[in-house]
Amino acid sequence: MAAVKLIEYEEASPEVRAVYDDIMTTRKVDTVNNFWKAIANDPATLRRTWESLKQIMQPGALDPLTKELLYIAVSVSNGCGYCIASHTAAARKRGMTDEMFHELMAVIGMASETNRLATGYQVEIDAGLR
Amino acid sequence: MAAVKLIEYEEASPEVRAVYDDIMTTRKVDTVNNFWKAIANDPATLRRTWESLKQIMQPGALDPLTKELLYIAVSVSNGCGYCIASHTAAARKRGMTDEMFHELMAVIGMASETNRLATGYQVEIDAGLR
Amino acid sequence: MAAVKLIEYEEASPEVRAVYDDIMTTRKVDTVNNFWKAIANDPATLRRTWESLKQIMQPGALDPLTKELLYIAVSVSNGCGYCIASHTAAARKRGMTDEMFHELMAVIGMASETNRLATGYQVEIDAGLR
Amino acid sequence: MAAVKLIEYEEASPEVRAVYDDIMTTRKVDTVNNFWKAIANDPATLRRTWESLKQIMQPGALDPLTKELLYIAVSVSNGCGYCIASHTAAARKRGMTDEMFHELMAVIGMASETNRLATGYQVEIDAGLR
Amino acid sequence: MAAVKLIEYEEASPEVRAVYDDIMTTRKVDTVNNFWKAIANDPATLRRTWESLKQIMQPGALDPLTKELLYIAVSVSNGCGYCIASHTAAARKRGMTDEMFHELMAVIGMASETNRLATGYQVEIDAGLR
Amino acid sequence: MAAVKLIEYEEASPEVRAVYDDIMTTRKVDTVNNFWKAIANDPATLRRTWESLKQIMQPGALDPLTKELLYIAVSVSNGCGYCIASHTAAARKRGMTDEMFHELMAVIGMASETNRLATGYQVEIDAGLR
Repeated sequence: MAAVKLIEYEEASPEVRAVYDDIMTTRKVDTVNNFWKAIANDPATLRRTWESLKQIMQPGALDPLTKELLYIAVSVSNGCGYCIASHTAAARKRGMTDEMFHELMAVIGMASETNRLATGYQVEIDAGLR
Repeated sequence: MAAVKLIEYEEASPEVRAVYDDIMTTRKVDTVNNFWKAIANDPATLRRTWESLKQIMQPGALDPLTKELLYIAVSVSNGCGYCIASHTAAARKRGMTDEMFHELMAVIGMASETNRLATGYQVEIDAGLR
Repeated sequence: MAAVKLIEYEEASPEVRAVYDDIMTTRKVDTVNNFWKAIANDPATLRRTWESLKQIMQPGALDPLTKELLYIAVSVSNGCGYCIASHTAAARKRGMTDEMFHELMAVIGMASETNRLATGYQVEIDAGLR
Repeated sequence: MAAVKLIEYEEASPEVRAVYDDIMTTRKVDTVNNFWKAIANDPATLRRTWESLKQIMQPGALDPLTKELLYIAVSVSNGCGYCIASHTAAARKRGMTDEMFHELMAVIGMASETNRLATGYQVEIDAGLR
Repeated sequence: MAAVKLIEYEEASPEVRAVYDDIMTTRKVDTVNNFWKAIANDPATLRRTWESLKQIMQPGALDPLTKELLYIAVSVSNGCGYCIASHTAAARKRGMTDEMFHELMAVIGMASETNRLATGYQVEIDAGLR
Repeated sequence: MAAVKLIEYEEASPEVRAVYDDIMTTRKVDTVNNFWKAIANDPATLRRTWESLKQIMQPGALDPLTKELLYIAVSVSNGCGYCIASHTAAARKRGMTDEMFHELMAVIGMASETNRLATGYQVEIDAGLR
């Protein structure tokens, strides 16, 4: 259950519908995920979040698949179950293979381990890295 | 200050030196970072961590630069200052440009924001994503 | 499922009942949440937690509603689903409107984003802020 | 040390200067913090972050001081030292008294404690809270 | 639902079966948990994770029960519901009593509280602790 | 720098001194750490935190050294540098050997890795663990 009612397209205001339309057109899908339907209760947040996401996730120096993999890495680290499910699906749509997924998970796990070792051993940053 | 003395090559046991040698050969560098010198106080952890890291970070379905970017994303999410500094340096050595770094940071920031929105709005996973 | 049996009022010891009674009187409710029924398996933790919470959440320099909003902000950041649900309900009872809830979520999301940017860019604290 | 060079006003591009000017005008200050000088290496992120922050932190259903307190609560939970220092200063400028600061800290600490208790005891969300 | 199909013993490759056999023999159980069945989709991660875990969790300077308690403390702090459930069960099998469990939870909660207080008050490390 | 002035014994109020005295007597030391001097700016938090800590960390079903190890595990997971330094020192005073410290770090690292794997693979809790 969301903390708020999910706003379906049919009942949405023109302002919200315009964002939904842009999401569906940009992503070539015919519906929007629950995430958007939840934050649509706050049209300002809906618009700002979508505009930022669209700008950030577009092809650039990093390709969209790499960006989705990064999104998953952050979502796992933050423990956001919803985001892991939705961005794993998004990454698969962008071409993530099983092998990529497994390597992604291995890197996330390894980094988490050495992060804690470096923190627990209170390792000082090397002079050459500063 | 580390919680332990840093083990320099000169004073290291043959077992520890063997790992240091492999790190330096594999990475084509002539010294090892403080991280390794700290965990070398526990040779079993040194060996296991290096063997795992070497296996996981090698080229595979994901290239080594992408893996370094993922490492940074996890390290930032976990707030490990040492790891951010060392893996940012490692990523630059593997070809991370300024543009890539900026896009990496933007994705990390954006994901962190939507992670919290999805969590705070208590959004349920879409039926189609389960 | 809790890791422990939930202790219902009827089966509770006098020591536990006394805390339940104080919770219900203080909060003007006629039952206690599962959280209390779970930690009641350890009466010392039940009493200490309730006494601390009652002291901290009372009106002071900050009003009780502001304190509930802060509680939600921490709970979202820590990813505690139970706490988000219970404190969102508590905040609504204390007068949190939809508009407040949306602004709360927007601030949490924004702070999470800039937290990661500041960490990832390894920004040093300004001399004037030290 | 930042991962990037801090961009000072004098050397900034017109695009970056425009954002710096808006920050200084909006906040009635005559310089911008290191955070902005760091992310100014990526003018798109600088602009987007500032525009979002300005929109979110303006007076609304929640007043600006409450929003700064929430920002601190998130920053402490995420362990962002830079953000804690800068937003604690910002909150003081907006009127946070010592008493408010102490109560803020107490709520953050208390919430962190009960977050972990609820998680560790695996407490199920009450039917009435769903 | 896992992000991947769970690999049951009957359909597992000889490589995966060998790990399952070792887990079951080492732990004196006749099945493996879902965690292993999920990561078995990546036999390299399955083997590496099991070999590391077996080495780390064996009796040493710390006894196996203490190690399980530490595992729970980390899992609660990281908000991993699966890990909390499985390691709480593992700790009980190794002799964790109700009293131990309650004290474990109390320490986790207390540490989380003082962690945030130390961070929020920006306390400098004492000269004598450096 | 702390966010507040450190309260030294000489300048402390009788209420604060009484807590300092109890800390020094209980711990058989002749000074208190910066942590206490920082939160002493809020005598209510000082007293409540000390009383809770004293109660929780006393010998019980778990011995004081085990409790210190747990404290370190939580502090590393939460990334609290101050707490890691102070509780590592406290654990050494209570008898933590180098071997124990290394095993502690190894368990923390391993748990962090499998926490993320379980989360990223979205593993469902086994029926038998519920």
